[in-house]
Amino acid sequence: MNIQAFFEQSAGKWASQRTSHQLLQNQSESAKTELMMTLLETSDPIVAQLCQQSGLDPAQAVSGLKITWSSIIDRNPKTQTGSSILVAVADLDQPNQGRLISQQAGKATLGRYSLGEDEVLTLITETPELYAEERLWFASPNFRMRTSIVKRSGGFELAAFCTEIRLGITAKPAEAAPAEAQSSV
Amino acid sequence: MNIQAFFEQSAGKWASQRTSHQLLQNQSESAKTELMMTLLETSDPIVAQLCQQSGLDPAQAVSGLKITWSSIIDRNPKTQTGSSILVAVADLDQPNQGRLISQQAGKATLGRYSLGEDEVLTLITETPELYAEERLWFASPNFRMRTSIVKRSGGFELAAFCTEIRLGITAKPAEAAPAEAQSSV
Repeated sequence: MNIQAFFEQSAGKWASQRTSHQLLQNQSESAKTELMMTLLETSDPIVAQLCQQSGLDPAQAVSGLKITWSSIIDRNPKTQTGSSILVAVADLDQPNQGRLISQQAGKATLGRYSLGEDEVLTLITETPELYAEERLWFASPNFRMRTSIVKRSGGFELAAFCTEIRLGITAKPAEAAPAEAQSSV
Repeated sequence: MNIQAFFEQSAGKWASQRTSHQLLQNQSESAKTELMMTLLETSDPIVAQLCQQSGLDPAQAVSGLKITWSSIIDRNPKTQTGSSILVAVADLDQPNQGRLISQQAGKATLGRYSLGEDEVLTLITETPELYAEERLWFASPNFRMRTSIVKRSGGFELAAFCTEIRLGITAKPAEAAPAEAQSSV
């Protein structure tokens, strides 16, 4: 799998269950989210625009993804919504690693991605104040997992875990994600 | 890092926060656990005994770990306790992968381990009825993370996430795990 295939496999509608562990408080919080991920062609004007804003060559952009979400967080009746754009700009010599532009609420952040031989995609964002590391992988084509950790001023403060199940598919039993229609348990 | 170093770094007392996502029910459950992990020398008689029971050559055992735990699970006032033993038996040609013997409640199960270049340890147990995959990695020497998924009869049913923080250490700020004494947030 390469980064393009990883983004392609991410495209679609997903139900996500997220748990965040607040490490300093030793507490956790849960959220349920519906995610829609749409593949962006590298010819899409937003891809070139984000590359230029980040000082990167749009010709090296290999894939993009637009994500919109709607979340319900524990004990909060108000639905949270938002959207973001990811653009992967490959290193010239190693296409499965490079820079990752992440735009949310109009603000672009530049990080790094690397896709390992075990097909785990690692995303790292580092600023003087913050270090964030996210790992994503497919347990099956219709079941994606995600962990993230956030460190500030030298100490870890948050770790989160998402299980994401593709919506609106007729799952094949051999590679099925959990679905209400299944009676495997 | 090799498998011996991974086990050595795991040795000690840890506070673990675990969240399980029951995928078919779309529900989650939390538990807090104290874990004590003790390195087992390959010369320990239990290592040879478990290898022989599993039909493996004790001379190829590279490391062992004894784990004891005490857990409090959501909405259940009763503390759960238990212990297990892990023994890694390396492949002859590739020392960072091999068989993993896991003994719990007197029953030994044989699985596989592999330690990737990204220093993520993957443990896989597969029987005709069950497929379990666990990934473990150190975010820092005193902060370990763990995810696991369990599939039965073709369908995923459980995904779990643990954040584990070493207890009883005086953390160095640069690589510190969260600790009450720290005021980094």
